[in-house]
Amino acid sequence: MRRWSFGPETLSADYLEWHESARAQCRREIVQMTHLADSGHPGGSLSSLDVYLVLYSHANLDPQNPWARERDRIVVSHGHTSPGVYSVLARLGYFPPEDVIAHFRRTSHVFEGHIEREAPGVEWTTGNLGQGLSAAAGMALGLRLRGIAARVFVPMGDGEQQKGQIAEARRFIAKYALHNVTVIIDRNRLQIGGETAKIMPQRIEDGWRADGWHTVEIDGHDPVAIYRALRSAAGDAAQPHAIIANSVMGKGVSFMENKADFHGRGPKPDEYARAAKESGEDPALWNLEPYRARAAAGAKRPLPKPPNEYPRIVPGEPRTYAGDTKTDNRSAFGAALADVAKANARGTFTPIAVFDCDLEGSVKTEAFHAAFPAHFFEAGIQEHHTAACAGALSIEGIASVFADFGVFGICETYNQHRLTDINHGHLKLVCTHIGLDVGEDGKTHQCIDYVGVLRNIFGMRIIVPADPNQTDRALRYLLAEPGMFFLGMGRSKLPVITAEDGSPYFAGGYRFEPGRGDWIRRGAQGIVVAMGTVTGRAFQAVSALAKEGLALGLAHLAMPAEPTADFIDEIARAPLLVTVEDHSVRTGLGECLAAALFARGHALPHLRLGVERYAPSGGANSVFLSQRLDAESIQERIRDFACARTR
Amino acid sequence: MRRWSFGPETLSADYLEWHESARAQCRREIVQMTHLADSGHPGGSLSSLDVYLVLYSHANLDPQNPWARERDRIVVSHGHTSPGVYSVLARLGYFPPEDVIAHFRRTSHVFEGHIEREAPGVEWTTGNLGQGLSAAAGMALGLRLRGIAARVFVPMGDGEQQKGQIAEARRFIAKYALHNVTVIIDRNRLQIGGETAKIMPQRIEDGWRADGWHTVEIDGHDPVAIYRALRSAAGDAAQPHAIIANSVMGKGVSFMENKADFHGRGPKPDEYARAAKESGEDPALWNLEPYRARAAAGAKRPLPKPPNEYPRIVPGEPRTYAGDTKTDNRSAFGAALADVAKANARGTFTPIAVFDCDLEGSVKTEAFHAAFPAHFFEAGIQEHHTAACAGALSIEGIASVFADFGVFGICETYNQHRLTDINHGHLKLVCTHIGLDVGEDGKTHQCIDYVGVLRNIFGMRIIVPADPNQTDRALRYLLAEPGMFFLGMGRSKLPVITAEDGSPYFAGGYRFEPGRGDWIRRGAQGIVVAMGTVTGRAFQAVSALAKEGLALGLAHLAMPAEPTADFIDEIARAPLLVTVEDHSVRTGLGECLAAALFARGHALPHLRLGVERYAPSGGANSVFLSQRLDAESIQERIRDFACARTR
Repeated sequence: MRRWSFGPETLSADYLEWHESARAQCRREIVQMTHLADSGHPGGSLSSLDVYLVLYSHANLDPQNPWARERDRIVVSHGHTSPGVYSVLARLGYFPPEDVIAHFRRTSHVFEGHIEREAPGVEWTTGNLGQGLSAAAGMALGLRLRGIAARVFVPMGDGEQQKGQIAEARRFIAKYALHNVTVIIDRNRLQIGGETAKIMPQRIEDGWRADGWHTVEIDGHDPVAIYRALRSAAGDAAQPHAIIANSVMGKGVSFMENKADFHGRGPKPDEYARAAKESGEDPALWNLEPYRARAAAGAKRPLPKPPNEYPRIVPGEPRTYAGDTKTDNRSAFGAALADVAKANARGTFTPIAVFDCDLEGSVKTEAFHAAFPAHFFEAGIQEHHTAACAGALSIEGIASVFADFGVFGICETYNQHRLTDINHGHLKLVCTHIGLDVGEDGKTHQCIDYVGVLRNIFGMRIIVPADPNQTDRALRYLLAEPGMFFLGMGRSKLPVITAEDGSPYFAGGYRFEPGRGDWIRRGAQGIVVAMGTVTGRAFQAVSALAKEGLALGLAHLAMPAEPTADFIDEIARAPLLVTVEDHSVRTGLGECLAAALFARGHALPHLRLGVERYAPSGGANSVFLSQRLDAESIQERIRDFACARTR
Repeated sequence: MRRWSFGPETLSADYLEWHESARAQCRREIVQMTHLADSGHPGGSLSSLDVYLVLYSHANLDPQNPWARERDRIVVSHGHTSPGVYSVLARLGYFPPEDVIAHFRRTSHVFEGHIEREAPGVEWTTGNLGQGLSAAAGMALGLRLRGIAARVFVPMGDGEQQKGQIAEARRFIAKYALHNVTVIIDRNRLQIGGETAKIMPQRIEDGWRADGWHTVEIDGHDPVAIYRALRSAAGDAAQPHAIIANSVMGKGVSFMENKADFHGRGPKPDEYARAAKESGEDPALWNLEPYRARAAAGAKRPLPKPPNEYPRIVPGEPRTYAGDTKTDNRSAFGAALADVAKANARGTFTPIAVFDCDLEGSVKTEAFHAAFPAHFFEAGIQEHHTAACAGALSIEGIASVFADFGVFGICETYNQHRLTDINHGHLKLVCTHIGLDVGEDGKTHQCIDYVGVLRNIFGMRIIVPADPNQTDRALRYLLAEPGMFFLGMGRSKLPVITAEDGSPYFAGGYRFEPGRGDWIRRGAQGIVVAMGTVTGRAFQAVSALAKEGLALGLAHLAMPAEPTADFIDEIARAPLLVTVEDHSVRTGLGECLAAALFARGHALPHLRLGVERYAPSGGANSVFLSQRLDAESIQERIRDFACARTR
């Protein structure tokens, strides 16, 4: 395998010779794989092809060691150009081209319709347009934090430039002087629906320049121009570069050129024959039978899996908040975060980074910021970018914490987290101001769906702690664990939950264990299960009912989406169940438990208390009162329910 | 009440006199309400105050008739400046100022922390930053479609400019020449975390100009300059204007000026006293006792509710697809949409509008586009803007249809739909390419959470039809009904579901009824409930099992989140239940039915078949096979389950 670098001033003769020959081969393979799949995106693959060839062959990459620490990262944002990417990677030795051609877009291999991180050489699964630059920024932060002098290249589409998230990403990159990030935009002037200028007129260069980027326009099919622009970007420490590479959709296949139709379809048999003929190549090269046979036989070479890197993090000593403490979970989170960062620090380095969207004081990340300023990223009111950026950093060996209000960190950025999960990320999403407990901000800020929304993400593990002690221990737990986690909390100061003896319940011998129901009180006449903010109110209700002679057990379930079977069976032995949550009553704790109980064949009377409609502005107590989720209302509602069941 | 207009070249002397006096009063009230609430956003309210005074007093508005058809629309995008908005509206007679001061941010009245459409004079509930301009664009489209010559003004914050969605909105507005939209940005140079230039450096004017807007910079505290800039925008038919109003956060209260701290907190008692003193006003005006007493007494005047306008739409004659038809639900949707639009047309007008994000050919809105070009909006790859814009149009007496792929129309834009629902919108969200049935695009494009995500939105009613006939009837139903609806479908051609006699099941006497389970076959040994795309596969499985001697009933449930009690009780009488869905097995049909059965006290064995992990690329059949959701696998899995239960 020949390799080149961005060292020389211009392209070498031997490279140019290789480029010519590789281009013809890749072009053929792009046509072949999209024809065999009868789908896929040949048009953009062909318009981006010269860029991919120059870039992948000159960047610091080693196909034999595709995840080398020091490698340059290439994040292809317009992931639908997968035929182009795969053909170039195959040319460079990442995997055999015949496997790609045979298995492209088939369930039998990793060569998906949109590039997928399972394929060596692919850094980030994309396909949802507009997220690649944010991911690249996250990787660039990882390189900086770990002291790796590598570059990050981001090929993008021109239709994609319409996505607003890109503007957020480029401002972030400019702010943090991530000048090792270089963008190269394939401007073929077409998108699915036709001419980009008609679908959505846009002055692409002006947008990049407005956000502080240097732009240059080149011929996207001239390898020398591509090389020089990329090299020049590498030599400019003062600003990030966006290279606009003017190109021709379908370049090199006459009937595909400048045809929007070939954005997203493969050539039909007659078109395939025509492409073969006009190539002037040996017809044997265009014979598809070997690939068809290969696919039919399931023949393929196994590929190495991308590393699933996560730092070793020690949780440190938990803090204990005494029974009479009045603090909020947010503060406990902030203190524990700084603790863990310090416990794992080597000098100014800690294996943790924190992202903020202009809410540092509210989400309580100030102590971390003060202790590790180089690990704290203030991204402004740019949540989409921030979620994607934090997600990508999480695969770079850094525990990446995105701390935000619930409505922004969950409702606004769900799709970004979903893509991080598809990429096997380890994002730690911490949201404050969840539920109705948001202060007086009102319904737009009430995130009442944190369980209901996030549990759709397969890898996301949801934790909603009861009080500051459990918050502390849960945060330490999830930082030490790989994988995606959500930690959610309201805004208010909460009572410390205590055991019968008055000692803090979630302290002493307590250890955080996933899915466990924590029995705060025992009682034979029914079970109340609470989650998060309202646990103290449920506790008051249960205590008051005990005085009335109704002995109910009270448990807290911090991980509503994954209760243990033991806990479910224990609930089922009670005469009735009440769930109390600061969450939509439709999709949270009550729903999870109902479904889990049903799945294990149980039936028992169940009263679901939770948020039944968008709630008004007000202090926490009056908002809970307005929703009949204050302690007295809970008490009354449980009493009514229990009486009706025992009559 | 005095009213003015943008007719004269400059402000009249009587206006200027009123402005001075009103400004002092509003400033006092802003300080009072945020002090009494001990929260809220006085800083931005004071920096925006002069703009609000000039704008609300000169725009074509009538406080006695706050929802007059011909009125100008003012969409305040930085909704946290509610004290400023409320105080100015109160000054103009929309509601009594004493009610606002007494009840601001209290559950007792509509005066929320972020402006809320329930308050007369407020056009759109905002608070989630960056969405106001998109909403304004939707209203401007409504005005254009209905032939109303009104203007739309959009006050915005400067921190808010960081949100990428704004760039999408301004390109859309420029493309559609919505030059009656005028933006005025309150540039006080501060946001919660401090200086905007430090939090996220940004060249605001350059961004607007890059997207085709005229910009002008003015003194945001000079009423004459504000007036002239707004008037000049109104006189320019060639381009939309963005006015950058340089201002001082906390303007007019010495200790609040240029203090980011007062972005989001009310003055403390000593600060309140200082503000009162420095005002030089009669101390009686600063006496809060009357407001406290008013709040304590719950005294308030009732306010009129905003209209909940929805057009009268006749569903037209359903189309029937014969039993041997092979078509997809997408095509049936597209045909029915064009039918209904024509059935309700008066000349070139129809009470329907359709939004597209560069997927017209895939989501099958071409027939509508061809028939009603002025009602079809191609927004490009700008889903966040499009969702919010379509949502706002839905309150303007037009049935607003947003048709997109599932992953973009749901996962990417959940928060926008949530805000539309909070605004009592009537959005009709139609998503194709849901589930695994997306063609070979792969996991980034597989929206396997359409039920699990959307059912968190209180007003959203979810419909997943079984075949083209039901799609046709469901679309007609939801267009005729007010409120938020989702209609979801995959990409593939589907078999027409037939009754025992071979006739199309969802035709003839069939009428779409919410929540109904449709019994496709009856059988005594158990019940299979399917939803959407996989219904045909479930049907094959049930038919094959019948031949093996296992007689199972098969029902289709198109509205999984709201099954009727009758249907649930009918299921409960069966010996076992199997659910089959092209959706995450955790959060869709199976979960909804399990919870609904549990809620009604039922227990029975339940096999949940659905998507258990992110799936690879491939044709529909091979993807379903890879997830064991093909007909044969379904048959096997049901057989195993049933045998184990009957042994």
